[in-house]
Amino acid sequence: MIAVLRLGHRISRDKRVTTHVALVSRALGVDKMFVDKKDSKLEETVHAVCERFGGDFSIETGVNWRHVIRNWRGVKVHLTMYGEPFEDAVEEIREKDGDLLVVVGAEKVPSEVYQLSDYNVAVGNQPHSEIAALALFLDRYTMGKWQCKRFKGKIEVVPSKRGKKVVTRE
Amino acid sequence: MIAVLRLGHRISRDKRVTTHVALVSRALGVDKMFVDKKDSKLEETVHAVCERFGGDFSIETGVNWRHVIRNWRGVKVHLTMYGEPFEDAVEEIREKDGDLLVVVGAEKVPSEVYQLSDYNVAVGNQPHSEIAALALFLDRYTMGKWQCKRFKGKIEVVPSKRGKKVVTRE
Repeated sequence: MIAVLRLGHRISRDKRVTTHVALVSRALGVDKMFVDKKDSKLEETVHAVCERFGGDFSIETGVNWRHVIRNWRGVKVHLTMYGEPFEDAVEEIREKDGDLLVVVGAEKVPSEVYQLSDYNVAVGNQPHSEIAALALFLDRYTMGKWQCKRFKGKIEVVPSKRGKKVVTRE
Repeated sequence: MIAVLRLGHRISRDKRVTTHVALVSRALGVDKMFVDKKDSKLEETVHAVCERFGGDFSIETGVNWRHVIRNWRGVKVHLTMYGEPFEDAVEEIREKDGDLLVVVGAEKVPSEVYQLSDYNVAVGNQPHSEIAALALFLDRYTMGKWQCKRFKGKIEVVPSKRGKKVVTRE
């Protein structure tokens, strides 16, 4: 199982960014996402995508993030531009037993997170985006296998060189 | 040269998402970004990051996107969930002569973009994030070499397993 914990979500400011974190998580094979702040609108948006496009991704908002990290039975990876290079760490992480929890913060992350995590991992040491960092980390962690996942949704996109093709099922 | 064209930017709604597109572009080796809508605040934010963290990334907002695509001397790649799989297309794209333009849209993209682009490429056929799609595409296109880029900024992060280490230069 792979889960993502989103820290520091502020409903108005991070609405779209946290939605992107959720959709990238779903598309790249994550099973569950936790968000520290309660946000029913975000939950609805994510449920609507799952309803149409399939898969069994779930989201829970308003969690106690300390509890989630402390009680996690498996490896805990915090993505931060200050961490060790992800290419060095990812193989070791992949070999660990148990489930994977990936922690992604908004702008400021409590220093406690650095201590509670087993790995603090940087996807490049430049400021960029937790969305991109998460995508690149999950891509390496799954060795690109997220691309093989079948979602079996009501709507399925048919890859096409021009235009839009979709198959719709009831 | 690699450039990114951001389409459909709406100042209030996409402020943070377009900033993420810019920062990911910079971190993954893009030289220049174009944004269709004029947005001085976005330009300032990006300049401030370049000023502190280095590199020669530039941004131009308020461009005529049709002109940018039509006059581009090189290959034009539009990222869309409806396109052909990126893993299939990226090698062919890499071998093309001239500069690379990557087009990323917000929610709705004019159908003209599908026609004007040389490639319509999907980073997975699920709805997710143009930020993640751009990062994964650039990673494959550069074969991970973006990680070797040196930015020589005033602030440089020293990779670290715990906590934050930075070197500051004048």
